[in-house]
Amino acid sequence: MPDVPSSLPRSLQDLPPRWAHFCLGIERFVAEELGVELAGKRLAVGFSGGIDSTALLLSLRCLTARGGGRIVAAHLNHRLRPEADEDARWVAALCATLGVPCVIREADVATLAEDSGAGIEETGRQARYALYADVLTDHGADFVALGHHLDDLAEDVLMRLARGTAWPGLAGMSGRDDTRRLLRPLLLTPKAELAAFLAELGVPWREDASNEDQRWSRNRVRASLVPLFLRENPSFLDSVARLWRVGEMDRDYWGVQTASVGERIPNAVLSKAHRALRLRLYKAALDRLGSAQVLSDTLWGLDRAWQAHRVGAVFQFPGEKTAVVTSHGVVFSAKH
Amino acid sequence: MPDVPSSLPRSLQDLPPRWAHFCLGIERFVAEELGVELAGKRLAVGFSGGIDSTALLLSLRCLTARGGGRIVAAHLNHRLRPEADEDARWVAALCATLGVPCVIREADVATLAEDSGAGIEETGRQARYALYADVLTDHGADFVALGHHLDDLAEDVLMRLARGTAWPGLAGMSGRDDTRRLLRPLLLTPKAELAAFLAELGVPWREDASNEDQRWSRNRVRASLVPLFLRENPSFLDSVARLWRVGEMDRDYWGVQTASVGERIPNAVLSKAHRALRLRLYKAALDRLGSAQVLSDTLWGLDRAWQAHRVGAVFQFPGEKTAVVTSHGVVFSAKH
Repeated sequence: MPDVPSSLPRSLQDLPPRWAHFCLGIERFVAEELGVELAGKRLAVGFSGGIDSTALLLSLRCLTARGGGRIVAAHLNHRLRPEADEDARWVAALCATLGVPCVIREADVATLAEDSGAGIEETGRQARYALYADVLTDHGADFVALGHHLDDLAEDVLMRLARGTAWPGLAGMSGRDDTRRLLRPLLLTPKAELAAFLAELGVPWREDASNEDQRWSRNRVRASLVPLFLRENPSFLDSVARLWRVGEMDRDYWGVQTASVGERIPNAVLSKAHRALRLRLYKAALDRLGSAQVLSDTLWGLDRAWQAHRVGAVFQFPGEKTAVVTSHGVVFSAKH
Repeated sequence: MPDVPSSLPRSLQDLPPRWAHFCLGIERFVAEELGVELAGKRLAVGFSGGIDSTALLLSLRCLTARGGGRIVAAHLNHRLRPEADEDARWVAALCATLGVPCVIREADVATLAEDSGAGIEETGRQARYALYADVLTDHGADFVALGHHLDDLAEDVLMRLARGTAWPGLAGMSGRDDTRRLLRPLLLTPKAELAAFLAELGVPWREDASNEDQRWSRNRVRASLVPLFLRENPSFLDSVARLWRVGEMDRDYWGVQTASVGERIPNAVLSKAHRALRLRLYKAALDRLGSAQVLSDTLWGLDRAWQAHRVGAVFQFPGEKTAVVTSHGVVFSAKH
């Protein structure tokens, strides 16, 4: 197990100027683009011990110290790899040196996945988010901060493109999710900068060998697709950041346009609306009935039925949600 | 030189039912999604002799025959490859059999490129579009039809993503361009279907060896990226078609929202507008001063300056276009 340094920076003053500046850049991104002031906040930090979350924990430790903020680390031991217990001990040691409380939970993800029939990746994800939700409540935290960075965002955009995600979802994961109270402060920071930050501080990190496993779609995207895009455009990561900004802007725009939508969308609203707005109104109505929903072919079918006044036409959506064309407009409902 | 068949279909009745249906599907796409009725139209057809444009010429020959439409083929001999003259003779022979007039022009693209300093690809493109513009005028054609298909669209989307094109440009090339009077009837048809169509009719096509040349970015995207996306999602081409439809819808939406924009956008308009609309208003004002302009970082800078009331701030855009923040709003101008 690599040694945790005997002392670690706990405030911006402890950092070399370049890296204090780096942390302030993260703070500015979170303030200006995600709308959250970090100073003085209570944050939970998802901390795997990998490069991303180690850099996140260190930068947030320094940034939240001002204004009396507090952070707590949350680590899930997935018990998937032989070195998982060592990872957990390393995580605990680093948090102790940093003066950050640390919640460590164990979950036998392989067994859980077998029992539920869900994949290992998905089961691990669910177990992590359950831990985060508990830590948010137990520690009265405002957000749980996650270590996703610009390279992750690029992979996410490529995976969404492959899967057929429409706009604005195609622009990638959100920087802030108020429903699950997630914050992604490093989302526009390239991974290479995180590595340079940790190298400067002499902080090692834990490598996750499963990141190399080409059976996972995400790892294939990382190993094969991203390098090809970088070959076509060495500034590809900048392009992804720019696309994400346009996506966030358009997400907000459509959010404003559909803010007042309910389970019934009257003809008076639909007949004034451009199809681009109508489809987003349907989508917003469905989202309000539970979990996200892409701009699917079914939404287009619903819109064609509405346009053709096919009163009584019924459309089924995932999550047992239903839309019906009535003589007054379109009505959405869910079984639950 | 492969033989041109001694007879070729000139109407839907000459086609096997499955392929008549295939042609009617193209007609329906052009009518419903591009807003153009093919029957009775006068069309120029860009005809290289390759698989795409050979399939396009054959299908349009059958579709336009009804209602007294007429087509004329336009072929540019780029004089880049040893077989270029043979290609041109083959093109002339096929048109003769099909009963379609054919305009063949020669351009020494390599020399032109050397003289102008532009790349060979770009010079060839310009020479082709100059030919199309002349044929449009000389033959009084409504549109020039081009053979771009769904595989081309997928490559285009990936190249735009690599380059950092924002939304809705990211969704790929338009199916219809009224400024240059272009029409792309095959844009949502997979290349494999075009090959099957030609195989059924026993029509050979000319292979362009330069399509294999990995020095061209487009060929690298075709050979490396598209197969990887197909590995992640075997229905990737369907995803691209769906994304394109959302893009066309949003393009139209923003077109409607910015329809009345002029060279001066008053504060009264800007202060009511969401940033997503303000950026599209700026873009529309710039587009009206000449050629397209992506949602660049400069547009964001302009918007920040407008928000901060930085009266007198000047922003330069490609094509010698300028935007100035004034006390009344934002004013756009071009040197010419």
